[in-house]
Amino acid sequence: MRRYGRRMSEETASSTAETSTETEPTGEESGRRHPRPEPGPELAASLRGVLDGRWAAKRDTVRNQIQEQALVPKAGLSLDEYRALMLDQMKAMVPLGFPADGFRTEHGGTGDVGGAITAIETLGYGDLSLMVKAGVQWGLFGGAVENLGTAHHHDQYVRGLIDLDVVGCFAMTESGHGSNVQNLETTATYIPESGAFEIHSPTPSARKDYIGGAGQHARWAAVFAQLITAGPGEEPESRGVHCFVVPIRDENGEDLPGVTTSDCGYKGGLPGVDNGRIVFDHVRIPRAELLNRYGDVAEDGTYTSSIESDNRRFFTMLGTLVRGRVTVGASAGAAGRLGLTIAVKYALLRRQFSAPDEPGEQLLLDYRTHQRRLLPLVARAYAFAIAQNELTAELHELQSGDGDTDPDYAREIEGKAAAIKAGHTRLASDAISEAREACGGAGYLSENRLPLLRGDIDVFTTFEGDNLVLTQLVAKEQLTAYAEDVQGLTAVGWVRFVASMARDVALEKTAARQVVQTLLDDSDEDTEQSDLTHPGTQLRLLRNRENHLLRTAAARMRRAKEEDADALEVFTETQDHLIKVGESHIERIVLEAIVDAITDVTDRPTRETLKMMRNLYVYSLLERDLGWYLMHRHISVERAKAVRRGVNELCGAARPLAETLVDAFGIPDTALDLPMLRPENSVAAPQ
Amino acid sequence: MRRYGRRMSEETASSTAETSTETEPTGEESGRRHPRPEPGPELAASLRGVLDGRWAAKRDTVRNQIQEQALVPKAGLSLDEYRALMLDQMKAMVPLGFPADGFRTEHGGTGDVGGAITAIETLGYGDLSLMVKAGVQWGLFGGAVENLGTAHHHDQYVRGLIDLDVVGCFAMTESGHGSNVQNLETTATYIPESGAFEIHSPTPSARKDYIGGAGQHARWAAVFAQLITAGPGEEPESRGVHCFVVPIRDENGEDLPGVTTSDCGYKGGLPGVDNGRIVFDHVRIPRAELLNRYGDVAEDGTYTSSIESDNRRFFTMLGTLVRGRVTVGASAGAAGRLGLTIAVKYALLRRQFSAPDEPGEQLLLDYRTHQRRLLPLVARAYAFAIAQNELTAELHELQSGDGDTDPDYAREIEGKAAAIKAGHTRLASDAISEAREACGGAGYLSENRLPLLRGDIDVFTTFEGDNLVLTQLVAKEQLTAYAEDVQGLTAVGWVRFVASMARDVALEKTAARQVVQTLLDDSDEDTEQSDLTHPGTQLRLLRNRENHLLRTAAARMRRAKEEDADALEVFTETQDHLIKVGESHIERIVLEAIVDAITDVTDRPTRETLKMMRNLYVYSLLERDLGWYLMHRHISVERAKAVRRGVNELCGAARPLAETLVDAFGIPDTALDLPMLRPENSVAAPQ
Repeated sequence: MRRYGRRMSEETASSTAETSTETEPTGEESGRRHPRPEPGPELAASLRGVLDGRWAAKRDTVRNQIQEQALVPKAGLSLDEYRALMLDQMKAMVPLGFPADGFRTEHGGTGDVGGAITAIETLGYGDLSLMVKAGVQWGLFGGAVENLGTAHHHDQYVRGLIDLDVVGCFAMTESGHGSNVQNLETTATYIPESGAFEIHSPTPSARKDYIGGAGQHARWAAVFAQLITAGPGEEPESRGVHCFVVPIRDENGEDLPGVTTSDCGYKGGLPGVDNGRIVFDHVRIPRAELLNRYGDVAEDGTYTSSIESDNRRFFTMLGTLVRGRVTVGASAGAAGRLGLTIAVKYALLRRQFSAPDEPGEQLLLDYRTHQRRLLPLVARAYAFAIAQNELTAELHELQSGDGDTDPDYAREIEGKAAAIKAGHTRLASDAISEAREACGGAGYLSENRLPLLRGDIDVFTTFEGDNLVLTQLVAKEQLTAYAEDVQGLTAVGWVRFVASMARDVALEKTAARQVVQTLLDDSDEDTEQSDLTHPGTQLRLLRNRENHLLRTAAARMRRAKEEDADALEVFTETQDHLIKVGESHIERIVLEAIVDAITDVTDRPTRETLKMMRNLYVYSLLERDLGWYLMHRHISVERAKAVRRGVNELCGAARPLAETLVDAFGIPDTALDLPMLRPENSVAAPQ
Repeated sequence: MRRYGRRMSEETASSTAETSTETEPTGEESGRRHPRPEPGPELAASLRGVLDGRWAAKRDTVRNQIQEQALVPKAGLSLDEYRALMLDQMKAMVPLGFPADGFRTEHGGTGDVGGAITAIETLGYGDLSLMVKAGVQWGLFGGAVENLGTAHHHDQYVRGLIDLDVVGCFAMTESGHGSNVQNLETTATYIPESGAFEIHSPTPSARKDYIGGAGQHARWAAVFAQLITAGPGEEPESRGVHCFVVPIRDENGEDLPGVTTSDCGYKGGLPGVDNGRIVFDHVRIPRAELLNRYGDVAEDGTYTSSIESDNRRFFTMLGTLVRGRVTVGASAGAAGRLGLTIAVKYALLRRQFSAPDEPGEQLLLDYRTHQRRLLPLVARAYAFAIAQNELTAELHELQSGDGDTDPDYAREIEGKAAAIKAGHTRLASDAISEAREACGGAGYLSENRLPLLRGDIDVFTTFEGDNLVLTQLVAKEQLTAYAEDVQGLTAVGWVRFVASMARDVALEKTAARQVVQTLLDDSDEDTEQSDLTHPGTQLRLLRNRENHLLRTAAARMRRAKEEDADALEVFTETQDHLIKVGESHIERIVLEAIVDAITDVTDRPTRETLKMMRNLYVYSLLERDLGWYLMHRHISVERAKAVRRGVNELCGAARPLAETLVDAFGIPDTALDLPMLRPENSVAAPQ
């Protein structure tokens, strides 16, 4: 057994003149009081309880399905074969019940939003093609009908949607309009004479593109289009983007008249998803096929809506669709955990280069560099998994209510969904790339799954909101403190708005959750003197950074008020600052979630392990951002050195727990049944 | 036309008390004296001249072939189809002449090592599957025969090898031994009675694995195995790893007796490369098939070698094979430039979100965040391309000599090859991932090539030396100053060696090249006061960092001399420090190469553009490592702020040149003939 004790760092070893006041026993806030947690199945089961959370039973249902039906990615199938297989696997999931979870009981579902999200999330342990196909059908297409439709639509579509009699797609993105969906070009013009909407793609860039299901299987599409109508005596006018249910294929899979679909073909991954394109040539649909919860057109063409502003109405509609974003982040997280599990298990089998005084060669995971490439990602995966669960539960509460939700709270959840989606998909992409590299040549073979996972996960940073756009959105929300009517503003309009705000921006505008507040109250305001392993210190360091960035961003924006200021230039010059605001916010709310979760854990080894994960999460993020912290004097040079040392020490401390940490993810065996993880196949046994 | 002027930074805007002494006009060292370079074909052609360098004609030969034969990656072919296509494409390249370049004229080649490398590099603008297949045949298999063989082998194989009558593979890696090839398990036991070697795989982990060509096409293998022999009256003894030419398949492609090949199947990419496995069951080959340049076995089993030490002999043999590593880095660089070109051109077509006072939406590349994600990578691509060319030329000189090369110089080139391989493949992988994400959904479609490129490039960080292992090797070379006999040491032995060295380690052990020395002499020793755009300041900042890291690493190693020190623990605790030494070295030598190259450029706009690339390369690497620089007080907080500002300003300054900068790479049109780059297909034209 190796020792993982504390050692002098580079600096203390090389500079005898230095007196190190920073000898924090990282991961040992309580480590000297309590023994180190013992690795093993007991600890893994307890940790899994924390990570599985409220919808643990739903997770197990899907885990069993993955195990029994071997729902894992496959290499070498043709696109047709893969897609057909996905449809079969979806049909086999209907009896499990979760496809009905996303729909209210009165519409024919079971009304368990959190269960719906968690089930699809868990498919990330299996095959992401299946996860996306399922997410499109029951989450996106189903979500549009459920949340934007009214009784007619619920009666007509929901049961069929659950049972796959109605297979649909979610036709929002266009060739020319991805991130900026408010500018979609497809039109839906109401023709009072025939009581019909005419759906039309007026330009090549109006073509619906990348639409999952549109390539082959979808017979219906939830089409987002500019609604154009005129009441009696009015001029036709656009009322902004609305959603319509449009049949696109007949029962033989042939395009209906006026509809031209095509196939996006091969992609970087997700071979089982039939992404496609749709062009509409004056396609008429009955008036009733407008999903009219937030805006309606009367027989005579009169437009009515409970929300006056086109802009606010559009963003309210988008807001109800937030579940897709939450689900994508959650599933990516699951896939990231799978990738890390594969890499950690390989590093516990694979030996390379001799280890003195031991038989054979040394295990990869006994190399510090290998620990450093994997274990901080494992810690981040813990923190994000917990934050993601919290978000799922919050969305569940929001969408399970009677519909009379506090708009500010809804807006807050939307902001959080954007934040967690961006952070969790980034983590997944980073983790899977690192896992692939950490498994060397074996990690490049499809039989060992990592390259398939890598190809599949790649687009998660793009769809359901490009991460960079979302991160900027998160920052904007923080800066404008949920002010209404800023959502539709151009960059310039938004900068001018921020510049015009009289008051100072500060993080404290939203109340901190109780446990965070208590920890903050109990911690030393002087972060330099306080214990770096104390959650209060950690919270302060992250909140202070976010606050600093917010205040300085607002100050820079105020330049836009000056006489000669060019607001576009102000925006351009501050854009990287904004992104940093967003990133800091994401890291802070994730820390708060894990801090909060730890409070509820009573089992001591479990609690100690989670604290170790929290510390490694914080230390490694501080290490990545040391430049900023030093530059803005939020930490001293001495403390910075302690951070770097701390990451090494925490990696050493987490090393004996590594297998337990990933076993706690509860990945089904079949997903880990890989040639490179069978010791007899690829590892040189010690002599 | 947008303006790209200097603006106040976050900090100066928010803190009025600060007096900024750091208002360096980045990219304007001469910018106020000379006008900004004008973008356009003239500048592109001139820059291309610099980047194409000495083997420009060879590049054009391959560019034409890519263009005429449409040598681009394809989606949707079966493995069999793709592999067969590769063989056809290779045959079509034989008449171009470059396959003969890697072999001496007296062996039947043309003796143009630099040309051979450059030609294969340029295939990185086409299809990396073809590049790898060609590299395996003419570079690795051919290189083994050429450099480890003697007259018999040259006579027997070289012509056939060039013409593809002899298709071979390079069978070094084993299932259990990738990075640590000195520990290969395959044996080659000499049997004096039959005058034959018996090649054998004694364990499952001795299986040859991931071998390009072994899956299907190779009929011969250059097999690396432990040579075991005994002279008269001696006990059989291993003389370390040697290389043997072993026939593995008959003319019908069937395994020869005792040989069992199998196929690695689907991978993350490179579908045209038939990677496979080989197991040997007591396969006999004539004694003459030992590639006996560095060690030979007489008929009676007596072993002789001009190099006494098994260890030194092994590393000398490996050293002659360095061309593979150089080629892999070069080709990855080409692929990275291709990825960046695609992303930059897309960002100059694609618009998203409105731009006030302009028709339509704003171009992606006018967003600062988009500039920041692509332009620093373009700058790094310039710097690495130039450093790579220099390395190719140095290797050419080394291998074109009469064989009496200075071993220290050879060792230096090997170290540089490891450094540039690690840095250039990392860059390529980063660049292509970033390019994919920067192109959103379009970037995920195989028709737009980026996902294929992403899948293909992924393993370049692994093969021909895992990047982490190579980076550590670079650091070790710096620390042990090319001391002999340390190459084969275990981690612990090596740490003990460093600890035992009396003298201090310092960068100055190797003489700086003339131009670097002059610039250093002319620059202010106080990097804090001197102009940050001056190459002397930049060189100093990078050299000082490397020196600091080297000295402190050595000091930490000396702990291994202490009584109770555990050398393995010292190694573990310092491993991340070592990696940082390696990375700093790589960044420094690349800077020196571009600084040197600029000196030779007389055309002013070209020179100014290259300086801008150099500055952006330096500023962005300083920004990434600000934490270290601040923590070790190599730059001040004020200067750190200037660095961050500088990256933004340089991105703004490079923006108008973006298309010219990538046009200078000279990518063949066919490689850029992608649906998403055809404006009529996917871009919303301004209204």
